[in-house]
Amino acid sequence: MNLVLLTEKELVDGLALEDARSVHLLNTVGLKVGASFHLGIKNARRGLAIITSTQPRLTFTVKFEDVVQKRFPLTIIVGLPRPQTAKKVLHDLASVGVDKIIFFDTEKGDAGYATSSLWKDGEWTEHIDKGAEQACSAHVPEVIRCATLTEALANIDAATWKVALDPYEASHALGEGTPAARRAVLAIGPERGWSAAERALLLKNNFDLRHLGDRILRVESAALAGSMIVLSQLKVWEKHRPLAP
Amino acid sequence: MNLVLLTEKELVDGLALEDARSVHLLNTVGLKVGASFHLGIKNARRGLAIITSTQPRLTFTVKFEDVVQKRFPLTIIVGLPRPQTAKKVLHDLASVGVDKIIFFDTEKGDAGYATSSLWKDGEWTEHIDKGAEQACSAHVPEVIRCATLTEALANIDAATWKVALDPYEASHALGEGTPAARRAVLAIGPERGWSAAERALLLKNNFDLRHLGDRILRVESAALAGSMIVLSQLKVWEKHRPLAP
Repeated sequence: MNLVLLTEKELVDGLALEDARSVHLLNTVGLKVGASFHLGIKNARRGLAIITSTQPRLTFTVKFEDVVQKRFPLTIIVGLPRPQTAKKVLHDLASVGVDKIIFFDTEKGDAGYATSSLWKDGEWTEHIDKGAEQACSAHVPEVIRCATLTEALANIDAATWKVALDPYEASHALGEGTPAARRAVLAIGPERGWSAAERALLLKNNFDLRHLGDRILRVESAALAGSMIVLSQLKVWEKHRPLAP
Repeated sequence: MNLVLLTEKELVDGLALEDARSVHLLNTVGLKVGASFHLGIKNARRGLAIITSTQPRLTFTVKFEDVVQKRFPLTIIVGLPRPQTAKKVLHDLASVGVDKIIFFDTEKGDAGYATSSLWKDGEWTEHIDKGAEQACSAHVPEVIRCATLTEALANIDAATWKVALDPYEASHALGEGTPAARRAVLAIGPERGWSAAERALLLKNNFDLRHLGDRILRVESAALAGSMIVLSQLKVWEKHRPLAP
């Protein structure tokens, strides 16, 4: 954990000692009063926190950074995978800093994926939070669940460069050429591939079909690698600035 | 598993029924005599196998593809990570098709990483084999262990584009510009970053320092994403050709 993510309210109230973040900072890392750690207010500023008390709650003061970290203009559309895969996708796409993740129930997918406990009681939020904490970022992606690809496509901005990964039908590799806009949407097929109707819908919506070479990647690997190639093409990356005091 | 990897000898002898690959094909997938599956001879050809017998061993005939799949001209140098991370790196770099992986013991690394059971009795080969099987490829990377970064650098070709990931010191992002050669080496720092001596050695050896933006990624994520961006820049990707009968 390179940063501890919390809410504005937790910043004021401090954290209960039994909270997993307190346990991590005080017991795992072994911090005492006066020690510092990186803190982020979810979807807002980051800063360097100094512990002011460890009893009866963990409290801190924070020196916030002057320049707020950027969100990246990339939306990922992905066929709802099995829960174990979805956890990795949530973590990894949060850590690379995509703006929005839209999951849709696929024609070839298993109905059980959608009713998994991952999607109940906000369990999925834990995985995007961990991804942001790994990345030392306060930004977590917006996550949307849709029943169909049609519904997913209704959630994207028309003035966007639209790309879909398709190992079988694409004639060009991802990374070739120059993006057609400063915002992008990358659609990633479900585990068993796009159905004919889904592929037709993508083409009708002006998606550019691209491949990642002739190796068949897991959904989570294609999502991570595909996002990073598109982010590289969008030229949005700045060097990491350590959150120094 | 999109392909079953075996040796030339296993192709002749068939597989014992208790072999994990037989169990997968016969019990998990439920194949019978006459059914087909994708088969690869390690570091050689792929083909479509037809099961000819399931007693007393699993045997098959194979129709091999005409054109052998390419190996990609990319070597990855990576600071030896904890065994759990090393397993993911081995799997994922095999699945994207890099040619060679060189692990070196790092100045900031834990001595226990090098003596892990992963590196004894060839346990690590299981992870590269699984990566190739996932990718539907017969190619597995060559894997080398070195005691130092100096020794790792002695294992690379001088006429190679040399790039090192460094979130703190790089002034340009990976993916900017054009590769300086048709073969590349990508060096990935250990979990706690490059030491000053390691960074000096990279610069002395004409490595180009690059970053992946301001998010701090896990070693396995940086290895996967970095490899894919460099492969994209090397323009080595062709579309997947299904191994049809």
